[in-house]
This record gives sequence, structure tokens and C-alpha cells, in this order.
Amino acid sequence: MANSSKNGKSGNEQAPTRRRTFLQGAAAAAALTAMPRWAQAHPDDFAAIRAEIEKRHEESVKRLQTWIRQPSIAAENRGMNEGCELMMQMLREAGFSGVKKMPTDGQPGVFATFDAGAPKTLGLYFMYDVKQADPAEWSSPPFEAALLDKPALGKIIMGRGAVNQKGPEAAFLAALHAIRGSGKKLPVNLVFVAEGEEEIGSPHFPQVVRQTEVLAALKKCVGIFMPSASQGLDGQVTTTLGAKGVIECELTSSGERWGRGPRKDVHSSNKARLDSPAWHLVEALASLVSPDGNDPAIEGYAAKARPLSAAEKKMIAEAARRMSEADAKKLLGVQHWVHDVSWEQALELLVSRPTVNIEGLVGGYTGPGGKTILPGKAVAKLDLRLVPDMTAAEALAALKAHLAKKGFGDIDVNMTGGYDPTSTPADAVIIRVETAVYRRGGIEPVVLPRNAGSWPGYVFTGDPLRLPAGHFGLGHGSGAHAPDEYYVIESSNPKVQGMDGAAFSHVEYLYELAQTS
Amino acid sequence: MANSSKNGKSGNEQAPTRRRTFLQGAAAAAALTAMPRWAQAHPDDFAAIRAEIEKRHEESVKRLQTWIRQPSIAAENRGMNEGCELMMQMLREAGFSGVKKMPTDGQPGVFATFDAGAPKTLGLYFMYDVKQADPAEWSSPPFEAALLDKPALGKIIMGRGAVNQKGPEAAFLAALHAIRGSGKKLPVNLVFVAEGEEEIGSPHFPQVVRQTEVLAALKKCVGIFMPSASQGLDGQVTTTLGAKGVIECELTSSGERWGRGPRKDVHSSNKARLDSPAWHLVEALASLVSPDGNDPAIEGYAAKARPLSAAEKKMIAEAARRMSEADAKKLLGVQHWVHDVSWEQALELLVSRPTVNIEGLVGGYTGPGGKTILPGKAVAKLDLRLVPDMTAAEALAALKAHLAKKGFGDIDVNMTGGYDPTSTPADAVIIRVETAVYRRGGIEPVVLPRNAGSWPGYVFTGDPLRLPAGHFGLGHGSGAHAPDEYYVIESSNPKVQGMDGAAFSHVEYLYELAQTS
Repeated sequence: MANSSKNGKSGNEQAPTRRRTFLQGAAAAAALTAMPRWAQAHPDDFAAIRAEIEKRHEESVKRLQTWIRQPSIAAENRGMNEGCELMMQMLREAGFSGVKKMPTDGQPGVFATFDAGAPKTLGLYFMYDVKQADPAEWSSPPFEAALLDKPALGKIIMGRGAVNQKGPEAAFLAALHAIRGSGKKLPVNLVFVAEGEEEIGSPHFPQVVRQTEVLAALKKCVGIFMPSASQGLDGQVTTTLGAKGVIECELTSSGERWGRGPRKDVHSSNKARLDSPAWHLVEALASLVSPDGNDPAIEGYAAKARPLSAAEKKMIAEAARRMSEADAKKLLGVQHWVHDVSWEQALELLVSRPTVNIEGLVGGYTGPGGKTILPGKAVAKLDLRLVPDMTAAEALAALKAHLAKKGFGDIDVNMTGGYDPTSTPADAVIIRVETAVYRRGGIEPVVLPRNAGSWPGYVFTGDPLRLPAGHFGLGHGSGAHAPDEYYVIESSNPKVQGMDGAAFSHVEYLYELAQTS
Repeated sequence: MANSSKNGKSGNEQAPTRRRTFLQGAAAAAALTAMPRWAQAHPDDFAAIRAEIEKRHEESVKRLQTWIRQPSIAAENRGMNEGCELMMQMLREAGFSGVKKMPTDGQPGVFATFDAGAPKTLGLYFMYDVKQADPAEWSSPPFEAALLDKPALGKIIMGRGAVNQKGPEAAFLAALHAIRGSGKKLPVNLVFVAEGEEEIGSPHFPQVVRQTEVLAALKKCVGIFMPSASQGLDGQVTTTLGAKGVIECELTSSGERWGRGPRKDVHSSNKARLDSPAWHLVEALASLVSPDGNDPAIEGYAAKARPLSAAEKKMIAEAARRMSEADAKKLLGVQHWVHDVSWEQALELLVSRPTVNIEGLVGGYTGPGGKTILPGKAVAKLDLRLVPDMTAAEALAALKAHLAKKGFGDIDVNMTGGYDPTSTPADAVIIRVETAVYRRGGIEPVVLPRNAGSWPGYVFTGDPLRLPAGHFGLGHGSGAHAPDEYYVIESSNPKVQGMDGAAFSHVEYLYELAQTS
């Protein structure tokens, strides 16, 4: 599943073209002139924390390396317990108390608190799982966490989870270590929740959040955020006021369930006298979209999709003006938007359009060359992106009803993960604080009504909590879900923060939040 | 690709229900009472050869084991040179002279002759390659060639190539060793051609056969056959007067070629604004067949398909009466024929219907669970079965023209193998001799106008040779292209011949041919 950070990269694929510089590790002194109110009141505190981050740089990088070197892949049930224990240990070391493993019907979650005796409490959401990785596709092994030089970026760490999400999460922990290490007190209390199944659609995360003690703790929060590496290559940042929901599912057509065609693979010559589960799947798939494969054709699927408001359209128009279409196309490797729409329309579609996407097709013989079989089974892996006011449950029901009505009721629909869309008001305190910190760093964030990707923020923004929720953090990385995933450790690009700058952005955020009403 | 033998199994899937017994190893004496004319003239010769086959049983089985233990998989370019050399060595040991490796643009073929100074010459076609095998799916390792007991069948050899085609080929070699070992002379001359790419569609076999010296040698032949294990579990045999042609091809839809959608996998959230090569492939596929996935809808594809003649329909009606529909359905694991046709209609379709079959679908993420990508590429592996007077070249052209006309001209069509249909007259001498040998063994073969599978017999039956061509051999095996492929070595079923009985059927065939005009 896609969290907002990586979808920020892949969904929007570039930061705005209007470029501003932001404080550098080496330019900390200059940054002091742009300090927030609280920091102006305590310039020594601020400088001390910054120095402490730099002093602990090696320690922070080693922590991240240790983390990346522990694969924890829910899709493969690999290293999950070890990954959970490791993160819990890191939380304890960063000052959290009552760090608890929260059993679910799947991989365990984690709950922890950090009581600073402060008036305000902030929620934090982490994931400790990572996406699968095929070492053959990587230029440096995905679980080696090598430190490498990347042209025009500086020193990076390469590995699965580097940017999604261990790097940004480690930067947040580095901020906590630095605040404590410099003898300061956290300016806000923290409530921490994490899951180990984000990459498979967070199927059991509600079981963590809906625990009485967790709900009680979260209810005290002004909002909740996930650390992320929000900067594009040009240093810009996009703030999203929510995210699409998603359903991931497998559609399986089989002779076994269909009662037609073979139950297992038979010789392909039999196609002359037998139905084919693979063709049955192809026909079912074709019924789900318009003839060009672009527009969902599932009956009732998008009935509750809320059109963009005038305010949302205005945000998108502004974003389209500020972001580079050419850069976006280059990063995606595309020449045309769907239906050859304009850049602004493409952004509108990205933000507002429910989708039906084929992630994968697997049927019969998949090796090199051919094999003359009529397969007894074929599978399509789909993801469906949902916008408010669609719900995952209703979308799934619409899909099943559509298939049944079109004569494909035998096709098994196995939802492997997913959840509802997420929305957070533009004037929520966590959004205002985020904007203030970015602006003080010289960044005017691009604001979009929602992220085209998905993250399980609905657990916080929906009933019963109705908390604002989002992502925050300076820094840069790329390659989430892809080979050669990286996160910038020491930036050679004056517009982009390294890990220390990312950690410091969290320090700023926490202090800014403490002072914002 | 499918040779006639394995398609005899999988295409027809059972032998006729009218059961007769045939001579057993232990019943050789009784068999003498049913001896052919030539044998009646030389009863001692006949008994001596039979005794020699039995004497050399262990040697023959060991030869087959050695052969199976040498994988030679063209699709994986694995062990091909070793497999070719091993077969050449076996030919020399069996008495062939001038055994020559015939280079092609792919894997080499083999040409050899066996001049017995006889008036008649018979052509032989062998393959030395085998299908791929995934050891994880086998109950005994596919290249171990273990001798196992199989209930109701007796001692079998299990391994890749056991029945397709090393077992039957080894039985033929055993016949040659026995004739020579008993001091007799071959009653006919032999011309031998082989290829190592049968399982990938024989793309270079014409380069072997079209060599001047090979053509010259084959022109002297009365016909050509491939040794096969033709008996079903009930001992029955089906004779086919040809085979469908075939095209195996990969259809690849890619952003690269299409110029729309991404060139490589991108995050699936982008579906909202990008075309999808995977959907493009699904739509293209759906255009190739009727909405139920059963009838080819490629324009002009089947224009030259010759309808069944009255004589062919009569053969099929007779076959339908003799063969068990229930057994066929059980073996295939199916409950319904396509369009719910009758058994006779199902056989007519099997024999006469051109097909468009999906062998495999491979697109995007194919591992466990899901992965939120919009794939840059998706592939369908198809096979198309052709009937006279369709040709592979015309069918391929029709497929490409159809795709172009329907807006899918960017989809790459890579034909990986295939060839024209094959036809042999019912009154050809090799068919008459085959029938005579079967009948003398108490088997009335079921005759079908053609095999629903394919073999490269067109190289012989087409211009310039126009030779009759087919398959012959008693014996039984199953699992071609599947796990646990086997060939019966010592039969405990009185209706089914073991390897010795298969070898002896070849002895009978050669002597019968020598005497038939």
C-alpha cells in the first residue's frame, strides 16, 4: 500500500518549480535569523539542539542503517517480529515509555507514549514494514544500507525502506535524541501508534487504534502525523489535505469455481472444445473499464464520488501553475496524459478521479518462451483508488455486484487490503504549523486537496477520533516500491535537506506546535 | 509445442472404450499365432528378435535412463549440445552411419542413415529436446529417471521426456539393437532426421530438412514417422491423419512502443492521469475472441479453414461412438464442453476448429499479495491452432492486421514458433502398415481426421517432399508437459504394452512395411 510520502513522490513526482532555498546544515547560523517566536525567546536552546543533532549525526545514521538491515516485509511474512522488536527498542531509547506490542489478527502494532508534562499532545504514526525487494534489480543490495555518493544530491543511504519510511522516521527519532541530549524537555507530549502491515493495505491497523487505551490517548491529540521526506529534488514541498482510499484485490478466474473449462492446466489443443478461465478473466476485466482502459465502468462504483469544490479546483490551478509539467512527464517517463488532457486537468484527475488499475496479471505459463497449456486459473491483481465520499466497503460491493450482473459472478474477489479515503481541513492546527515551518524555511508549500496515493489516515480522520492527520518533514528520497530506494543523508544540494536538516525540521515543528493555538 | 503423441493423450485424452487385449511380454508364444505374413515365413527369426528384446531389456532401460538424465531444454538453452551429442552416440550404437550434426540458426538438428540394402526406405523423425520441468512439482525428480511402481500399470520410468519423446524413441532404438543382436538384417533402410527445438515450435527444423542431402535422402522414403506411445490406459490406439498447425506468440503491450502510459512501472496512483499498457493489452485480447472467449474473432483468420468432409465427419462419429465422453471429461477435469455441445460435436470442434488460446499472462507484479504499480508492460502468451488450408504465415499476418485495425498496432507480436497444419491420406502405406500391425495385435484403431495438437510434420507432408507422415508405436505413458511424466517399462496391465512390447511393435512395423506395396 502506498503512504502519502511516497505517493507524494510518485503521485505528484516533482516539487514546484518556484524555487527557494532553505537552511542548510552549514548555514544554521543564517537560519537563526528566521527563527520562530519560541526560538527567538530561547536562541541558545535552538542552537544547542541544532548542535546536538550534528554531534549525533553518526549515531543517527548508524541507527537508520541498523533499521534498514532488518528486513520486515509483511507481504512475505519476513522478519516481522524482529522488525517490530527493533523499532520498540528504538522508541525506548528515544525516550518513549510504556512501549507496548499490540497483537492483531495479523502482524502486531505498537503503542507508546512520551509524557513531557506539556499542555499539548501530538499523535505520531509509524510503519515498521517495508515493501518487497528483488536484489537482482538493485545496484546496491536492498538490505545492506550502503552509504553512497549520488551526483547532485550528496551522500545517500540506499536500501529498502530508506525513504519509505525508515529514513524519515529515524530523522524524527534523531530529533528526540537531540532535544534530550541537549538537556531540553520535549515541548509537547507524544502518543505513538505504529503498524507492520502498511505495505499490504493496513488490514489490521484498526485493531490497534480501536483499543480503549489507544483511543483514549489519541483523543488527547491535536492531530497526528507521519514523518516523511517531503522535499522534491528542487527542495519544494507539497502539502496534501488527505488521501485517496484504496482497495487492493485479486480477481481469480478458475475452472474450479466457474464449473466450466479445466480445473487444472490441460493441453492447449483442448481450447477447441473447452472454455478458458483465462479468457473468462480477460472478458471480466474488460467489463470493468471503458474501451480505452481509462474510465471505471463498474456500475455504481463512483456514485458517491464528491466532485472537486471551487476551492479545491483553485488549489489545483495554483499547483499547476507552480509545478512543472515537463518535469512530471520526464520523471514518469510519459509523453501523454490520459485522454491527452492539459496539465491542470491531469492534476485534477490525479486528485479527484477514482481508478481501476491492473497491478499485475498472472495466468498459466509465465516463464520464458511458451508452453502449450490451457490454464485452469488466471489472476488479475487490481487496485482501486477511492475519493470521498466513497468507502472501501461500498466500492468492493459494487465490484462484486458488477461482476455478478455481467456473468462473472464465479470470479473470486479477494480483497487483500485497503481502506477509506482521508480528509483533513486546510485550517487544522497541524496543517497550519506545517505551513509555518516550511515558510520560515523559505518554502511555500504547494497545497493539493488530496494525495492520489493512499495511507490509512482514515483510522484517525474517521469516526470516532476525527483527528486531523497528515505527513511532515523536510528531506528528500526516492524509489519507494522501486529498486535503488534512497534517502539523502548529507545533501550537496542547497535546496534539499539531509538527515540532520530533516531532524531539525521536526524540532521546529514540535516547538512551533507548542506555541500555536 | 505439442507433438502428436502427447496430444493424442491430451487432445483426445482417452483411448476407445471398445477394449481388446494385445500380446504381452509373457504371452509372446501366443502372439506367434497372430504373426504377419513375413513372420509366418520366418517364425524362428521373429521369436529370436523377441527373445533378443527381452534379453536386452536392462540395457534398453539403462539407455533410456541415461537419456532422461541429460536434460536438453531448448526453452532454457539447457544441456542442448550434450543432449544432441548423446542422441548421436545412441544412433551410432544402434547401427546408423554418417550420423551428422546439422547446424541451424538455433539448436542443431541431426541427420543419419541406415542402409540395409533393402528395396524400401522409411523416414524417421526424432526430437532430442524436452519441455521445461519444475522439480518442486514432481513426486520424483524430473531428471532422475527413477523406476517406480504405479498401481494398475506396473513398473514405470518417471522423468521429463519419459513419454515425450525419449521413451518411445528409446523403444525404437531397442528394436534396432534386437534385430542386429539376433543376427538379422533390417528389412528396410532408414533415413533419420531430428531436431532439438520441437518444444519451442521447431523454428529451425526446415533448415535441417531443406538441406540438399537430407531432401535427397528423404525423397527415397515411402513415408516418415515418429515413435510414440500410442496406447491409452485401456490399450486402445488413435490414428490421426495429420495435425493442426500452430502459432505460438507473445503479445507485448508496452508504454515504450505505445507512446502512451509509462515506459516502466510507476506508482499505481498515476492511473488517474495515465494510460495503462496492461489495460491496453486486455482490450486488445478481448478483441481477438467472441465475448465468451471461445470463438476466434480475428478478421480473416479462419477464412481458409476447410470444413470437415463427409468422410471426416463419419470418422468422428465413429470415434465418438467408440470413445467414452465420461472418461474424457474425467481426465480433463471438466464438466462441460464449450457451448455445451454434444460429445460428437466436441470431437468435431477438437479436430476442425481453429483456436486462439491464452497460454499465459504476465504483467506487472506477479508475486504474492499486491504491489501498487501501474506496469509499463504486460505480456500475453498465445497459441493459435490452425487447420487446413490455413497457413502459419497467413494466420500471423491476419493477427497483426486485426490488431492494427482495432487500434492495437503498437502491440508487439513475437512469433516464437509454429508451422502449418499437416495432412496425410488415409490410404498412405505408412497408415495401412500401422493399421495392420495394430489390428494383428487385436486393436482396431480409432481414426481421426487430424490431431488437435501440432507437430512439425508439414516439413514432410508439404512441398517439396509431400511424404505421408505420422506417429506409431505401442506402449503407454502420460504427463507430457506436466509433472510426473512417465512411460511404462514393465506393464502389469494386460491391455498395455511395456517397453519391450513397444520395441517389438516397431520390429513388426518394419517387417510389415517391407512386405506391403
